[in-house]
Amino acid sequence: MDFTDARVAIVGLGLMGGSLAAALSASDRCREVVGVARRPSTCARALSLRFVDRATTNLEEGLSDADIVVLATPVHDILYKVETIGELLKPGCLLMDVGSTKGAICEAMVQMPPHVQPVGGHPMCGKETSGLTMAEPDLYQDSVFVLVPLERTAPEALALAKDLVGDIGASPLILDPERHDHIVAAISHLPYLLAVTLVNAAEELAHDDPLTWKLAAGGFRDTSRVAASGLTMMLDILRTNRGPVLKALDKAQEQLAFFSRCLEEGEFEDLEAALKAARDKRREMS
Amino acid sequence: MDFTDARVAIVGLGLMGGSLAAALSASDRCREVVGVARRPSTCARALSLRFVDRATTNLEEGLSDADIVVLATPVHDILYKVETIGELLKPGCLLMDVGSTKGAICEAMVQMPPHVQPVGGHPMCGKETSGLTMAEPDLYQDSVFVLVPLERTAPEALALAKDLVGDIGASPLILDPERHDHIVAAISHLPYLLAVTLVNAAEELAHDDPLTWKLAAGGFRDTSRVAASGLTMMLDILRTNRGPVLKALDKAQEQLAFFSRCLEEGEFEDLEAALKAARDKRREMS
Repeated sequence: MDFTDARVAIVGLGLMGGSLAAALSASDRCREVVGVARRPSTCARALSLRFVDRATTNLEEGLSDADIVVLATPVHDILYKVETIGELLKPGCLLMDVGSTKGAICEAMVQMPPHVQPVGGHPMCGKETSGLTMAEPDLYQDSVFVLVPLERTAPEALALAKDLVGDIGASPLILDPERHDHIVAAISHLPYLLAVTLVNAAEELAHDDPLTWKLAAGGFRDTSRVAASGLTMMLDILRTNRGPVLKALDKAQEQLAFFSRCLEEGEFEDLEAALKAARDKRREMS
Repeated sequence: MDFTDARVAIVGLGLMGGSLAAALSASDRCREVVGVARRPSTCARALSLRFVDRATTNLEEGLSDADIVVLATPVHDILYKVETIGELLKPGCLLMDVGSTKGAICEAMVQMPPHVQPVGGHPMCGKETSGLTMAEPDLYQDSVFVLVPLERTAPEALALAKDLVGDIGASPLILDPERHDHIVAAISHLPYLLAVTLVNAAEELAHDDPLTWKLAAGGFRDTSRVAASGLTMMLDILRTNRGPVLKALDKAQEQLAFFSRCLEEGEFEDLEAALKAARDKRREMS
């Protein structure tokens, strides 16, 4: 089917779902954007912002005539919905999600009824705030949107998913779920846990000295920023990506132990080599 | 003496020294701003930027008639200069520094000849770039400038140091060296080492997958930004603040080990409590 004929239902109108609705409505290429939220107030707000053409708190009603359904709720809820909404979707419906881990979700997608066309998704963008009030039509602009087709996914369904991704200004990138989950453990889940580590370690060290927080400046703020991320989202991510995250934590612990050893034993040449490697790599990025 | 009568010599015209010269010249309150640099090209540049009234590569010449001398070189060089330049300073000269650790420097300051008035200093600002080309007159604006007077420091010398700090738009904060060094280990040196940890751990994890770096987005960039800091500066800092940094590393390692244990044993309630504490603390900051 052509993307311009598609009714797109977005389940969950938080930061990611709300921004997706906003982007689709701004481009105005698909036939209809339908929002599904738990609270009537969220539906009302999405309508008043003109992020959606129609909004409902009734999941069945929101999904019944959708050609594309995008699940934009926390990972544990995406998992629950993937397991339960199959019968509510019309034949040939493309079922996508925007969850931050893909292994568990794609495993669940494999079990969906055969009339559904599931494709896992993970837009590599966001911010450490959440909720519809923080949503913006440009959130996906110029970002990479990972797509994870299953063996059962028809080429036309994947093409439709790519059309949606292109419509919101993102670039599709096809990955398998294992590779995706290992990469995000290194570039997203580890930074989060290191930011939490920094805040909690500083809090312990600052216990006797309130000045500590007063003096924390730019470097501390940047390094700790993602520690402010939403708790439900991060817990879901860690629950569903335990193996890769544990591996990343091991590597980080090795580094810290190495630093301690260098400082204790005065091995400043080894220390310098490690600091230099990181400096050079980081400078390549910016 | 009155600050408006003071000749200020700044030794080292990198980011911190250059910005200090620029700020003093912009306010135009002191009598003269003299720059001392190793390279003639740095002197020429500082003069052409009008950051200094006079510049020289000759340390003795630069210091001979200075009422205030500010050492703005890396910590190992500050230590060397504190130990060697006493006889070049005129009687009553205020000798300050902008080094990032204070214990070792203030210990060396105690040994200076009695005609010198030493006050340790650490402006709590900066950026991860370095060099005179990155200097700017506003770098110190609205920042905290830690001052560490010694027992031997005369009240008038400390008052003059505060005048200088106020002149560049910063607020003086009096601290003892031990307290300063413990605080900066938590808010500056630990963030740096965690940023390095992130980059090096990600590099190890990415070894088989070049996509990792391609996909690293905002969260990774922020958390790793300070890993790009200058190597000489950071090595000096770690060398001269080993005790407090080791203590901070221990706290960080405890956190990471705790995360691993929670994930391995499925203790998600304990994990949630730790993530929540960090989230709430971090949200208080911004």
